[in-house]
Amino acid sequence: MTDFAAIILAAGKGTRMKSDLHKVLHPIAGKPMLMHLLDTVALMGVNRIVVVAGDRREQLDQALEGRDVSTALQDPQLGTAHAALQAKSALEGFSGNILVCFGDVPMVRAETIERLNRAIADGAKVAVLGFKPEDRLAYGRIIADDDGTVRKMVEFKDATEREKTTRMCNSGLLIAHSDDLWPLLEAVGNDNAAGEYYLPDVATGAIARGDKVVVIECEPDEVAGINSRAELAEAEQRWQAARRAEAMADGATLKAPDTVFFSHDTKLGRDVTVDPHVVFGPGVSVADGVHIKAYTHLEGATLATGVQVGPFARLRPGAVMEENSFVGNFVEMKKATLGPGAKASHLSYIGDATVGKDANIGAGTITCNYDGYFKYQTVIGERAFIGSNSALIAPVTIGDDAIVAAGSAVSRDVGAGDLRMVRAEQLVKQGWADRFHDTMKKKKAAQKAGAQKK
Amino acid sequence: MTDFAAIILAAGKGTRMKSDLHKVLHPIAGKPMLMHLLDTVALMGVNRIVVVAGDRREQLDQALEGRDVSTALQDPQLGTAHAALQAKSALEGFSGNILVCFGDVPMVRAETIERLNRAIADGAKVAVLGFKPEDRLAYGRIIADDDGTVRKMVEFKDATEREKTTRMCNSGLLIAHSDDLWPLLEAVGNDNAAGEYYLPDVATGAIARGDKVVVIECEPDEVAGINSRAELAEAEQRWQAARRAEAMADGATLKAPDTVFFSHDTKLGRDVTVDPHVVFGPGVSVADGVHIKAYTHLEGATLATGVQVGPFARLRPGAVMEENSFVGNFVEMKKATLGPGAKASHLSYIGDATVGKDANIGAGTITCNYDGYFKYQTVIGERAFIGSNSALIAPVTIGDDAIVAAGSAVSRDVGAGDLRMVRAEQLVKQGWADRFHDTMKKKKAAQKAGAQKK
Amino acid sequence: MTDFAAIILAAGKGTRMKSDLHKVLHPIAGKPMLMHLLDTVALMGVNRIVVVAGDRREQLDQALEGRDVSTALQDPQLGTAHAALQAKSALEGFSGNILVCFGDVPMVRAETIERLNRAIADGAKVAVLGFKPEDRLAYGRIIADDDGTVRKMVEFKDATEREKTTRMCNSGLLIAHSDDLWPLLEAVGNDNAAGEYYLPDVATGAIARGDKVVVIECEPDEVAGINSRAELAEAEQRWQAARRAEAMADGATLKAPDTVFFSHDTKLGRDVTVDPHVVFGPGVSVADGVHIKAYTHLEGATLATGVQVGPFARLRPGAVMEENSFVGNFVEMKKATLGPGAKASHLSYIGDATVGKDANIGAGTITCNYDGYFKYQTVIGERAFIGSNSALIAPVTIGDDAIVAAGSAVSRDVGAGDLRMVRAEQLVKQGWADRFHDTMKKKKAAQKAGAQKK
Repeated sequence: MTDFAAIILAAGKGTRMKSDLHKVLHPIAGKPMLMHLLDTVALMGVNRIVVVAGDRREQLDQALEGRDVSTALQDPQLGTAHAALQAKSALEGFSGNILVCFGDVPMVRAETIERLNRAIADGAKVAVLGFKPEDRLAYGRIIADDDGTVRKMVEFKDATEREKTTRMCNSGLLIAHSDDLWPLLEAVGNDNAAGEYYLPDVATGAIARGDKVVVIECEPDEVAGINSRAELAEAEQRWQAARRAEAMADGATLKAPDTVFFSHDTKLGRDVTVDPHVVFGPGVSVADGVHIKAYTHLEGATLATGVQVGPFARLRPGAVMEENSFVGNFVEMKKATLGPGAKASHLSYIGDATVGKDANIGAGTITCNYDGYFKYQTVIGERAFIGSNSALIAPVTIGDDAIVAAGSAVSRDVGAGDLRMVRAEQLVKQGWADRFHDTMKKKKAAQKAGAQKK
Repeated sequence: MTDFAAIILAAGKGTRMKSDLHKVLHPIAGKPMLMHLLDTVALMGVNRIVVVAGDRREQLDQALEGRDVSTALQDPQLGTAHAALQAKSALEGFSGNILVCFGDVPMVRAETIERLNRAIADGAKVAVLGFKPEDRLAYGRIIADDDGTVRKMVEFKDATEREKTTRMCNSGLLIAHSDDLWPLLEAVGNDNAAGEYYLPDVATGAIARGDKVVVIECEPDEVAGINSRAELAEAEQRWQAARRAEAMADGATLKAPDTVFFSHDTKLGRDVTVDPHVVFGPGVSVADGVHIKAYTHLEGATLATGVQVGPFARLRPGAVMEENSFVGNFVEMKKATLGPGAKASHLSYIGDATVGKDANIGAGTITCNYDGYFKYQTVIGERAFIGSNSALIAPVTIGDDAIVAAGSAVSRDVGAGDLRMVRAEQLVKQGWADRFHDTMKKKKAAQKAGAQKK
Repeated sequence: MTDFAAIILAAGKGTRMKSDLHKVLHPIAGKPMLMHLLDTVALMGVNRIVVVAGDRREQLDQALEGRDVSTALQDPQLGTAHAALQAKSALEGFSGNILVCFGDVPMVRAETIERLNRAIADGAKVAVLGFKPEDRLAYGRIIADDDGTVRKMVEFKDATEREKTTRMCNSGLLIAHSDDLWPLLEAVGNDNAAGEYYLPDVATGAIARGDKVVVIECEPDEVAGINSRAELAEAEQRWQAARRAEAMADGATLKAPDTVFFSHDTKLGRDVTVDPHVVFGPGVSVADGVHIKAYTHLEGATLATGVQVGPFARLRPGAVMEENSFVGNFVEMKKATLGPGAKASHLSYIGDATVGKDANIGAGTITCNYDGYFKYQTVIGERAFIGSNSALIAPVTIGDDAIVAAGSAVSRDVGAGDLRMVRAEQLVKQGWADRFHDTMKKKKAAQKAGAQKK
């Protein structure tokens, strides 16, 4: 395979986003647009990537930290061809095909890029990516023969009526070998109304010098640009729709697909049932036969076979539910493992904890894992029974088969098979409530009377 | 009325579902497809039902346990006509109309079946069910006169171009009198590419022998087959849309209909308001004037006039809310009755309990109904006041007008008008917190310094 | 500006709503239809408003209490022109333009009414509001010249085929100067099949006497009548879609716009992120940079810059979250302020409380603000640490930097820098749990054996 590099243009101001966050860092399916593009080109075995930044370059540098990606600065911003040219020094010494793409056109598919690449291998000097939109909006047109050979690139405003009838529009993305791209980019002029250097002129220049330029067609969805929050929401919606269809095709039941939201990396097994109104954050892995009930919110959680969770459950990063374990309503888990068959059915917080096989966590149980400075572990043994409304003050260990009585605040370890209860005096004051009611009713009546006087 | 029987074909492998569960047992609106069909034919006063099974017959047998339905086995599987014929011995001695339908085409309406039935009464020997799909896909066509008399049944692949322009497609369902059906089924041959016995050949055979065959038209939705999870989701969506429209027509306000999910048996009164994101499981009955707030999840619950519930409430089977009672956020009820005007406003679990009229259950109250082996009852009197964060350790009775002080774990009965409080020493350590903060801040600083050294 | 009055017809029975609530009081975006209309005409600087009531006039009177709006009674109900005429005595002495509109057509825009008003200023005697529906349903048609001059108003049933091809339909709304309106209304006859006095005959009468009548066109959505709960849901849906688009255009990210529901008065800052399944009740104000996580329910809440809330959070009226404060899952706030940087992360009820800067409210904390008769305040100091599962029995004050130990019910004030703990004996019964398990297993086995005998 030829060496392959990508230039990602990300110097636009993104004004329509009305955001302090760089446009290409806004997320789709929980992953920044730019990272979608990086992950896609990574699938291609890319050798070098340069992101061309403008404003807010520091946000891009920070987001790209730890990745093998260079940034180049475009300043001043004189058009897309000028932007692409700013990547030249970062790619010095590189010889091979170079893809020029856009940070705000993040959903182009790997196989589409592969087809662009192949077009170069097949003899084209430049391959441009075209699409046929449903509506015929003000896109530039690509005038090409039936075999894809491009005759002319034309801006919409310069197009004749006849040219406007051409359905093939220009997405802006193109590919060329470094030996061709740099001279073509350098030859682009700015003799136009805006005085800008336009990227499509690379293709125009190649045609002018007699090079073969071809158009590769992709789906309109792949090259939908994201310039506003509304377009961001539409891209998210398309991504979710595709992911839901994939989940169902793989054997998951989504009772109400439109109310279920996946993350870019959600893993779902077979015969998983997902009830309405479920949200998957990043890092969730769900094994076969799991039932995720309504209003469940999952992040960084691992669910083994036969697990049931929800409704109204919240699994945070590090939540591990082992086989056939059960989490019920208003329960939060974080950095905690629920052993096989263990249950936390109601109103509990299980954080920094290990719960043994078949243990039962009563309603209202709280692991007190934090003292304001450090976090501590709670370890609960197999078949242990934690009575309702208990506070387990970590670090603390409850032995196998041990019982904690309801309403106990437990700060010392409980041995296997032992009972721990917090015994406080259950005081009864006979008739006290009756007297209280009398007093308060009078007070209330007096208050009302006072209010009426005013 | 003529005697009436139904043969339900359910021998298909359902491979595209990618499921360990038999295809016809996947639920729509919380009820298995097959049961939708059984309930529909039951409306017709059916006398005999035979389900023809193939793989996973045991799942069908188990699902049908206790119902007056026979199963027959088709093995090997040689086509739909062959499948229908397997029901013959189970229907021995039966004389009357026999409907042949499909377990994975579950939403056909009773009145449609009634129209098929009537066609036989009106002189047809066979009545087939046709539909006119929006799209003209690869369905078999029914070539018929304007009066519905069928001239020819033709598979899509065998149809002429002219025949393909016919809009009437074959759903597969048909009806015939037992005297006609069995001989026609037995006469069906398998001289075709797949070597299978096809059910539409029953109609073809009848036409060939000069019998009157008619087509009855139904809505395309009624005969949409369910072969994948995506088609299952679409069927669910159609069912929900129809049910929502019905609820609104009957005088319920659904603020956001698309986010509300009903069960097959949900009962809703007049002037009920349902906020967004509400899920009804099976067995819910809601009286007039109830307000169900956002994110409420109900199963097996009964709500009387004037009730308010939610947001974030979960009513489980056996939850009964009497007139003007109130359940607020993060509250779970199970096998429990909330008396008229009683309130459980926040963060509580009320299980296996009876709460008296106008009682007030404080935030964080837990009924401790389970000791790991048995469940026990909590009885709370009228106008009783349960202080916040209390644990009521069942079996326990709190009398009328009694008060339980906040934070009490109550394991003994409280008399009417009495106060029960758990009195523990409130220890103050002056300056302790300040000293603790000092120590911990140093520890934290030391830890950081250590981390930096590494 | 000319003096301006509005007559709002609201005498219809609203039978199709099947409701005990007056049709025009059903809410859209949390505000009754009628109030939408009143707020819109208020934008116009209206001088006088008369609502014409029929059945359930008392509901209207109650809803309008405190507003400068008269009601008039139409009894018996003899048609829309008759209804409008009932407003005459309430408008006695008023001279100026009068808009006649409908309580169940509530979403007409202020600028549309302004255009009607302007038409009178420009010389028309009557201006009628027309629209061009997508579908051509049985609406009355307005036959007009290209310049908007109306030649004829015609009921659908009386229209010729040629007239029916006219796309301009009659919304019913119209405007005229009082000097013209009253005589025209009084001249309307009831010589028609229903024997009713129809409002469009005002225009017809004006044309007949040679007055200039013009049509002003608006969007079909503006004049969609609401006669059923389904139409109410559609109006709500249109309102929500427009509001979501506006929020995104203003710089908010809505990850799943279709699952987010706004109120009529929701205020959203820039760079606010709203996750799926969020519901805004009335009175919510959200500053820049706030993150509202999934399943958050807000009413009457104020969120400052940098706040994070949810998932599964419920902010009720009077909840104030100051800068960078944090509310996590299963937390309810009501009439409570969370100071800058303060946290209530899990399973808590914070009602009638003030929480200081950087304080930490542990999981399961409940402010016990109610004794069945009165509400009391809880005051928590800066940097205070409330241990998990604590009950703070108001009125109570916890000082700055103070610590409350986990599981404490605190009914007395805690000084700054002090520790308060409720010390109860932690009793251990060694081997008790093992013996309990033995006993209960035998009991369970005996019970099963008994059950089997039966």
